[in-house]
Amino acid sequence: MLIEPNIRLSRILRNTWQVDIIMIISCIAAYLVRTVLIRHHFEIPSIIPTVLGTAIAFFVGFNNNQAYDRWWEARKIWGSLVNDSRSWARSIISYVSQGKADDLQYAIVKKRLVYRQIAFLYALKARLRDAVDETYSQYLEPHEKEEIKLQGNIANAILMQQSKALQQLEKEGMIDSFRFIEMNQLLVKLCDAMGMTERIKNTIYPTAYIYFTKAFIWLFVVSLTLVISAFAGVWSIFLGWLVGFVYVSTQINGMSLMNPFDNNSAAVPLNQITRTIEINLLEMLGETNIPEPVKPINNEYVL
Amino acid sequence: MLIEPNIRLSRILRNTWQVDIIMIISCIAAYLVRTVLIRHHFEIPSIIPTVLGTAIAFFVGFNNNQAYDRWWEARKIWGSLVNDSRSWARSIISYVSQGKADDLQYAIVKKRLVYRQIAFLYALKARLRDAVDETYSQYLEPHEKEEIKLQGNIANAILMQQSKALQQLEKEGMIDSFRFIEMNQLLVKLCDAMGMTERIKNTIYPTAYIYFTKAFIWLFVVSLTLVISAFAGVWSIFLGWLVGFVYVSTQINGMSLMNPFDNNSAAVPLNQITRTIEINLLEMLGETNIPEPVKPINNEYVL
Amino acid sequence: MLIEPNIRLSRILRNTWQVDIIMIISCIAAYLVRTVLIRHHFEIPSIIPTVLGTAIAFFVGFNNNQAYDRWWEARKIWGSLVNDSRSWARSIISYVSQGKADDLQYAIVKKRLVYRQIAFLYALKARLRDAVDETYSQYLEPHEKEEIKLQGNIANAILMQQSKALQQLEKEGMIDSFRFIEMNQLLVKLCDAMGMTERIKNTIYPTAYIYFTKAFIWLFVVSLTLVISAFAGVWSIFLGWLVGFVYVSTQINGMSLMNPFDNNSAAVPLNQITRTIEINLLEMLGETNIPEPVKPINNEYVL
Amino acid sequence: MLIEPNIRLSRILRNTWQVDIIMIISCIAAYLVRTVLIRHHFEIPSIIPTVLGTAIAFFVGFNNNQAYDRWWEARKIWGSLVNDSRSWARSIISYVSQGKADDLQYAIVKKRLVYRQIAFLYALKARLRDAVDETYSQYLEPHEKEEIKLQGNIANAILMQQSKALQQLEKEGMIDSFRFIEMNQLLVKLCDAMGMTERIKNTIYPTAYIYFTKAFIWLFVVSLTLVISAFAGVWSIFLGWLVGFVYVSTQINGMSLMNPFDNNSAAVPLNQITRTIEINLLEMLGETNIPEPVKPINNEYVL
Amino acid sequence: MLIEPNIRLSRILRNTWQVDIIMIISCIAAYLVRTVLIRHHFEIPSIIPTVLGTAIAFFVGFNNNQAYDRWWEARKIWGSLVNDSRSWARSIISYVSQGKADDLQYAIVKKRLVYRQIAFLYALKARLRDAVDETYSQYLEPHEKEEIKLQGNIANAILMQQSKALQQLEKEGMIDSFRFIEMNQLLVKLCDAMGMTERIKNTIYPTAYIYFTKAFIWLFVVSLTLVISAFAGVWSIFLGWLVGFVYVSTQINGMSLMNPFDNNSAAVPLNQITRTIEINLLEMLGETNIPEPVKPINNEYVL
Repeated sequence: MLIEPNIRLSRILRNTWQVDIIMIISCIAAYLVRTVLIRHHFEIPSIIPTVLGTAIAFFVGFNNNQAYDRWWEARKIWGSLVNDSRSWARSIISYVSQGKADDLQYAIVKKRLVYRQIAFLYALKARLRDAVDETYSQYLEPHEKEEIKLQGNIANAILMQQSKALQQLEKEGMIDSFRFIEMNQLLVKLCDAMGMTERIKNTIYPTAYIYFTKAFIWLFVVSLTLVISAFAGVWSIFLGWLVGFVYVSTQINGMSLMNPFDNNSAAVPLNQITRTIEINLLEMLGETNIPEPVKPINNEYVL
Repeated sequence: MLIEPNIRLSRILRNTWQVDIIMIISCIAAYLVRTVLIRHHFEIPSIIPTVLGTAIAFFVGFNNNQAYDRWWEARKIWGSLVNDSRSWARSIISYVSQGKADDLQYAIVKKRLVYRQIAFLYALKARLRDAVDETYSQYLEPHEKEEIKLQGNIANAILMQQSKALQQLEKEGMIDSFRFIEMNQLLVKLCDAMGMTERIKNTIYPTAYIYFTKAFIWLFVVSLTLVISAFAGVWSIFLGWLVGFVYVSTQINGMSLMNPFDNNSAAVPLNQITRTIEINLLEMLGETNIPEPVKPINNEYVL
Repeated sequence: MLIEPNIRLSRILRNTWQVDIIMIISCIAAYLVRTVLIRHHFEIPSIIPTVLGTAIAFFVGFNNNQAYDRWWEARKIWGSLVNDSRSWARSIISYVSQGKADDLQYAIVKKRLVYRQIAFLYALKARLRDAVDETYSQYLEPHEKEEIKLQGNIANAILMQQSKALQQLEKEGMIDSFRFIEMNQLLVKLCDAMGMTERIKNTIYPTAYIYFTKAFIWLFVVSLTLVISAFAGVWSIFLGWLVGFVYVSTQINGMSLMNPFDNNSAAVPLNQITRTIEINLLEMLGETNIPEPVKPINNEYVL
Repeated sequence: MLIEPNIRLSRILRNTWQVDIIMIISCIAAYLVRTVLIRHHFEIPSIIPTVLGTAIAFFVGFNNNQAYDRWWEARKIWGSLVNDSRSWARSIISYVSQGKADDLQYAIVKKRLVYRQIAFLYALKARLRDAVDETYSQYLEPHEKEEIKLQGNIANAILMQQSKALQQLEKEGMIDSFRFIEMNQLLVKLCDAMGMTERIKNTIYPTAYIYFTKAFIWLFVVSLTLVISAFAGVWSIFLGWLVGFVYVSTQINGMSLMNPFDNNSAAVPLNQITRTIEINLLEMLGETNIPEPVKPINNEYVL
Repeated sequence: MLIEPNIRLSRILRNTWQVDIIMIISCIAAYLVRTVLIRHHFEIPSIIPTVLGTAIAFFVGFNNNQAYDRWWEARKIWGSLVNDSRSWARSIISYVSQGKADDLQYAIVKKRLVYRQIAFLYALKARLRDAVDETYSQYLEPHEKEEIKLQGNIANAILMQQSKALQQLEKEGMIDSFRFIEMNQLLVKLCDAMGMTERIKNTIYPTAYIYFTKAFIWLFVVSLTLVISAFAGVWSIFLGWLVGFVYVSTQINGMSLMNPFDNNSAAVPLNQITRTIEINLLEMLGETNIPEPVKPINNEYVL
């Protein structure tokens, strides 16, 4: 998530230089073609870039809408993971009764159920970012790690452990059936949120929209340059690129939101959110050794 | 689901060649009509294609919005089928207690309840794709297959079997009433998702929108060619087709998302998703003979 | 629901002939007024139809969006009626236990609870279509019909009977309190869906939008004809009508979706959906005398 | 809710005459200024009204979208009040058992719980319309009226009485805990719907949007008149007003939906809906003295 | 929330003067550049500002849509906090039974549970506004304040206290398990709403959209001034600024809604809403010392 209101020029160039070069070359070519070949034969009517400009603005807008919706949906899902994690910890700490356990056992049971929730979040984050990130394992017991290593989907396997622990809690009389239901519903919600993040990650935005939008913008820039070179001479190369840049950079802005779980500066700041909830949960347990919040990088963005 | 960012030219031509030919013929006709007949009598005012171009861009955008929404809703529904399948398996494995069953019976009861869920997904997939696909039956017992063959809606019949099995589980004391409720709610959600997929499959997008949009684009291309042939001569045939192509291909892109459960490269990759959940559930059961994930075809798309 | 991808010319004319005549007369009048009166005095600037054309495309698009949303919402509600009907039947068949009833009584109790659900759907359909349709009564016992005749809202009265039957079931020990809750929640959802359909049926789309859009399109067509008659002579009558037709037919397409429960070819196919669920429920009961699915009319549409 | 498809001219004039006069005066002024002052010095380029016209069509469209959404959301909320009222009455009548009460007491208990729900709706309606309307009190016992008079929010106070009555019902063994939960959830939903209506009523649509849109339309009309007066002479006053009217009346249509609970002809017909549900509930109680449905006023609108 | 329909000029100037100055300087520069340098060499084609004007209107509209949605979502969340607070108080007052407590204790227990809910709202408000606001603490017991001071998220810590109190209520037999579940679900909803407000507060709207929109508007104003200075001479400076103002002020209106929890006149009036619910809850407790509603500031806005 970018936090600086002004985008650095370097960032803009980094994102658009390839496209800029293609556009400038195309504009030059269009200028030359018109000057050398076309103008003695026929004229490109200005209605063509006008109509294309309007139509393509729609399509760029369409892509941006869908991209923003994906990004915001992704943010909402992680928001609900935050909420359900807190509710889980609150339920564990307030509603699990001591039963026949001694004080130490009682504290450990509660701590492990909350720790495992933190592990779930770290495992899910690693999976979404395709990262080899073992942070989750520091919140698990050694034998729990063993069990999980055999499975392809670690976050799902941790949820399974939570279910079994919940079943155990009831068996030992530490929660009653009513509390069991409430907590199981939180597990169902966490499973839903996990599946939703995977849906967004694994569903590629229809490539046809991206491909054709790029091609159409190019077409628009070329036709615009052909038309305006009759009025603006060699400056039409610059003007053609400038107008094209408005379309291209808006399209690129949209595309940068399309994969909201990637590990880049436009994506949802999973590191920050996960850390926040980690701090919350540890505070709720009354622990004292609490990590720092995630700091922005270069005061420019948070991951 | 297309996975390659660049669309192959062959794919574009395959999707649009009929329309391209119609457009080119129309543009030639318009050019000739104007050259031979009209130009000595009157002029087509350029305001007509300008206004039409804007209005039709709206309507194409409208169709694309609805198509994308159908596709994304379809994807969400299969996402929730994934989530509920996992929750179902998690509940079966963690919450069903042994009761009076011996170890083998206990394992078989759990396995059959999870297997039947996989069968449900395969049966639903076959139904959505109008395919004769008996994959589902390998996850059912022979007598279950018998029972089901008599019914028109196989997926629904499998849900019915799950309900009866659930009722049986409680009768035999393997789950209590609270767990019964939780699991029954998952069955209700699976039934809802099944109905939602059928709604999308069986509801034809209002044909008037598609028909008129095609007719209007054709009208626009013809009027545009008539207008620009005054400036661009015979090149107006090419230019008319080019602008038309922008509208037509966007419209076709939208239409390809309209039936998201069809067995084509733009649709929701049901094979892939079903296999993923199959693998997940088998892993959760601790099985070792696990199928491979679905591979993309030609590195171009996944079904 | 139209099922034929090509709209018949007869259908188009039937829907638009009145408007077409009005437009053609207006265009002729505009042409004459300009030719006879205006052209010696002043010119209608072309900016006026240009600006109007864009603005009105927005408003037509707005109306279409709302119309489509109503139609799709209506379809979703009937979809959820389908789902809840299946869940109801599944619950009745799997979860009602025999208690002290003998086999015949037991079968009859279950059958009547499912039959009454089919009656509910037929009664609701008749109400939504303002039809005098007594199909529902063939799924009710004579004394049930008696009870209901006294009430204004028959579908609601049937739901009331289901509630009382549910209460009775628990009293007689055929379901426990947990199953009672699950089934009552289905009744609440059916009641919600019933109310939602009535909301859509009874809420008239703000008439101002429809009235003004028609007036504005007329204004646009007249101003366009005035402008283009300077270039295209008598042909401007045809061109004015043609552009107007694009706007008018799009507006009319939207309007035809506005009342999705009417008994016409663009509406939600309630006959078809109700029959499908009737077949499903009878199959679930194991009955053999099952009606045919609804057939399209003229291969053109389904009601 | 307007029910007549054609808007009466008197209604249009009543809604727009002030704005019409302002526009006409502005157009006259613009015409004079151009004729007298500007035309010898410089020309207003036509690109200015063209660009403004498009941009303002967006902003008017934006306002209309939000207004329509508020109105439809308001309608949905009252729809859910209808549904929950029916579910409440159905639950009371079917699920409350006689316990130790004699027949008369039993009937009275049920009747009062349903009557109080009708009172709730009337109290909420009066509050939303800022009306001094004591209709609600005819459905309350004298001592209930007393209790309530001390409170600022009468509808909320009635809900409180329902809660207490529910608690009482369980204490006296007329409902069990399961039914208690089901009915309490209906009370929570009624409380939610009440809060939602207050949210819509009390949240003023950002005034900046309304204010600036009015100012921009004025700007557009003036600039348009300045431009077209070069072509159309004194007729430009009429033409400027005409185009302005398209924008202004669309904006005003939107604004009339902005406060959907007001007591005017464009708002949600609370009188009609409340009466419908009153009739439904009295029918469900088997009463015979049932009020008439609300009649349209002048066959033009329903309140 | 602004409550005055007319925006004061001072407010407009305060919000836009910086941008106005930049625009005017740019327009002057553009005018001079064209007059001195360009006009003897080439012409800026008017198609450029036309196309840019349309495209940028889309992007401004996009930003406004997202901003409005954030604002309205924020309002909805606080609305649901209002509803759940009322439901909480209603449940506490009606459903908590006296158990073995004496009358005074009984009253105190109920009062504290309701007071703590008010404290929760004040703590959440302070957090959202980054304010040092200790109002919440007047609704807490001294030892509760102690407990909370150690935690980073005070609102969350208060929810934790409510959970523990709820657990205690059941232990002492003042509520049964069914009521426990109902009230715990309210706590889960309050926790969800809290998390949602934090999501909106902490998620920065993609800065690229804001930055580029500003840059594009600037580009559009400059190109427009260049084009119109050929027609309107020195007046083009004024006209360029005027058109730019339409875009800029719409963009700024949107931006002012972007952070709906800030303490400014366009934001959601948290002071007012919190006070309303405070009054409601104190009335429900039957208290007499009730604070005044929040008054508008200068009759212009409410915070």
